[in-house]
Amino acid sequence: MPLDDFDRQLDTALLSAIAYAEERAAPSGPNDLPIYDLLRYHLGFVNDRFEPERVNAGKRIRPRLVVLTCAAAGGDPRQAIHAAAAIELLHNFTLIHDDIQDQSVFRRHRRTIWDLWGTAQAINAGDAMFAIAHLALNQSSETGVDPATILDLSNGLHQATLRIVEGQVLDLGFEQRSDVSADDYLTMIGGKTGALSRCACWTGARIAGSDPERLAALSEFGATIGVGFQLRDDILGIWGTTEETGKSEADDIRRRKKSLPVLLLRERANAIEQAELDAIYAHDDVTDTEIETVLAMMRKHEIQPDVQDRVRAWHDHARALLTSAVDPSPAKDELTMLVDALESRAG
Amino acid sequence: MPLDDFDRQLDTALLSAIAYAEERAAPSGPNDLPIYDLLRYHLGFVNDRFEPERVNAGKRIRPRLVVLTCAAAGGDPRQAIHAAAAIELLHNFTLIHDDIQDQSVFRRHRRTIWDLWGTAQAINAGDAMFAIAHLALNQSSETGVDPATILDLSNGLHQATLRIVEGQVLDLGFEQRSDVSADDYLTMIGGKTGALSRCACWTGARIAGSDPERLAALSEFGATIGVGFQLRDDILGIWGTTEETGKSEADDIRRRKKSLPVLLLRERANAIEQAELDAIYAHDDVTDTEIETVLAMMRKHEIQPDVQDRVRAWHDHARALLTSAVDPSPAKDELTMLVDALESRAG
Repeated sequence: MPLDDFDRQLDTALLSAIAYAEERAAPSGPNDLPIYDLLRYHLGFVNDRFEPERVNAGKRIRPRLVVLTCAAAGGDPRQAIHAAAAIELLHNFTLIHDDIQDQSVFRRHRRTIWDLWGTAQAINAGDAMFAIAHLALNQSSETGVDPATILDLSNGLHQATLRIVEGQVLDLGFEQRSDVSADDYLTMIGGKTGALSRCACWTGARIAGSDPERLAALSEFGATIGVGFQLRDDILGIWGTTEETGKSEADDIRRRKKSLPVLLLRERANAIEQAELDAIYAHDDVTDTEIETVLAMMRKHEIQPDVQDRVRAWHDHARALLTSAVDPSPAKDELTMLVDALESRAG
Repeated sequence: MPLDDFDRQLDTALLSAIAYAEERAAPSGPNDLPIYDLLRYHLGFVNDRFEPERVNAGKRIRPRLVVLTCAAAGGDPRQAIHAAAAIELLHNFTLIHDDIQDQSVFRRHRRTIWDLWGTAQAINAGDAMFAIAHLALNQSSETGVDPATILDLSNGLHQATLRIVEGQVLDLGFEQRSDVSADDYLTMIGGKTGALSRCACWTGARIAGSDPERLAALSEFGATIGVGFQLRDDILGIWGTTEETGKSEADDIRRRKKSLPVLLLRERANAIEQAELDAIYAHDDVTDTEIETVLAMMRKHEIQPDVQDRVRAWHDHARALLTSAVDPSPAKDELTMLVDALESRAG
C-alpha cells in the first residue's frame, strides 16, 4: 500500500471525524440516545451496548480506490486520507438509509440500526453520517489540499450522492414493476453502485492534480469497477455458498430480487417458463423446490456463464483504462491486483 | 429589502439549484418516480400531479436572515443569495425527514411527501434535498465569494445540521419519557430550532467579512430569534385560533405534544392535578372535555402569560444584540421589524 498501514489510518480518520462532531454536540443527558455511538456501531467500532469492539467493517474498496488512484496519478496519498474517509462515511450513510428502505435486518452479520433503534432514529443516524462525511472531506485542508480543490471535491461528492439517490429511486420503483429490462437494471446500478466508485477514483486523481484526460479515464475506471462489483454481487447472491456470503443459498431468488440473472432469465424464458416464473414470483414465500426450478431454468439458459462473462468484460475494460491512464508504479500494480481480486471475489 | 424583489430572487436560486442537479441526472423512464418534481412539490412550485402552481412555501425567515444580516454587517446582499437558498433547502430537507419521523400527514396545508409517495421515497427526497442545499451553497463562488470562505460556510452548515439532528434525537426520545423538564426542552429547541437560525445569521455576517466579535454577536442574535420563534409556536399550538394556524384549536394538547406550556404546567401542578394530567395523557385520544380541563389548569397556573413573557424576553435580547452588533442602516431596520413581527405573529 502506498499509504503505510492504510486500515489504521482510515480508522483514525473515520473516528476523528465522528469525534470532531461529538465534541461540538449540544449537551444531552444519560437517558438520551447517544447518536454518535450509533454511528460507531454501524462502522463496527462498538457493539450494540456501545462497548468497544472491532468487527468486520466492510471491504473498504472505495476509500482504498481514493488513496491508490491518488498515488497512481502521481499525487501524495497522505493528502487523500480525509477524502477517503469522507467517501467511506458517505457510503455508510447510504447503507443506513438503504437498510430502512429495504427493511434489511442484518448488515455485515450484525443487526441494522433501524432494527435496533427504530426507523425514526435510523433516519437521524444516516443524516448525521452524511454531514460528518463532508466535515471529513473539508478536513483535507489540514493535509494541504487547497480550498478551491476541496470545493470541487465537495461538488463531485454531492453529485455522486444524487446519482446514488436516483439509483435508489429507480431500484425501489423496480420492485413494483414487472417490465424491468436488463438494460434498465444496468442503468440503475450505474447510478446506485457505479457513481460512488467513479467519484472515489475521480477524487484521488483530482487531489493528485491530474489533467482532464486522465481525470476522465480514471473516473471511467472507477465507474467500471463499480458496475463489475455489482454484477459479481449478483452472481454471489444466487450461486455463492453460505460460507462465502454469510447469507442463505440462492438468497436473491428467495428474496425475489430483480438482479441481472433474474432479468436475463425473464428475457430468455419461453412462454411456458415465463408463466411458471410469474407463478413463483407472485407470492411472498419462495419454497426450496421453486428455487430449484428457477436454478434449473438458469442452467438451461446459461445465465451464470453469461453474467460471469460480463463481469470479466467490465474488469478487462477497467484494466485497459488503467493501463492507458497512468504510468507503471507500485500503486498501479496494487490497483491492478485489487481489480483482479474483485473479479473473482467470493464474499 | 436590501435585495430588491427578494422572493423572486430566492425562487430563482432554489429552482436553479434543483435544475442544476436534474440536468446532470442519470437517465430515467416515464414510469420512474420523478424525484426532482417531489422536491419542487415540497417547496410549493408544483402540485402533486407535478403541474405548475405557486402556493405558500413557508415563511422563509432563515433565508431572509442570511441576506439581511449580510447587508446589516456591511456586505453585499447579492453575494448571499445562494447561501440563503442553501439554508432554505437544508431546512426543507429536515422537514421532509421530520414529517416521516412524526408521521405528519399535512405540511403547509398540503399532503406530505411520505404520505403521498411512501416512506422509502421520502427518505430519498430528503437526502437529495440535503445534497442540493450544498450544491447551492457552493454556487456562491459565482457571486464572488472566495473558496476559503465557502469552505468555512460549508463547515458551519454541516455543524448546524448536526445540531438539528441532535435536537431531533432528543425530541423523539422525549416522546417516550415522562421526566422531561422545561430546561431539557429549552436545550432541545436550542438545537432543533435555534441552530439553523444561528447559522443563517452567522452565514450572512461571514459573507460580509465580519470580525469575530460581530460574528459572535450576530450568531447569538440568530440563535435567540430561533428559540423565541419556537416558544411563540408553542403558544399558537395551544391558544392560536384555527383561522390563525390552519390547525385545530389546542392542537398541541390534542396531539399530546410536550411543548413548553405543558412542561411548565406539569412542574407547577399539585399532586391531584398531576394525577389528572397523567390520566388524560395516558390514552391516545384526548377529548374536548379533557382539553378544557388542561386549558383551565393552564389558566390557573398562568402558563400563557409566563410563556409570552419568555417570548418577549428572547426577542428583547435579540433586539439588544442587534443594536450592539451593527450600525444603523436600512437593513438593520428591516431586521428589527422582522423581530417585532415574529414576536407577535399569529401564523
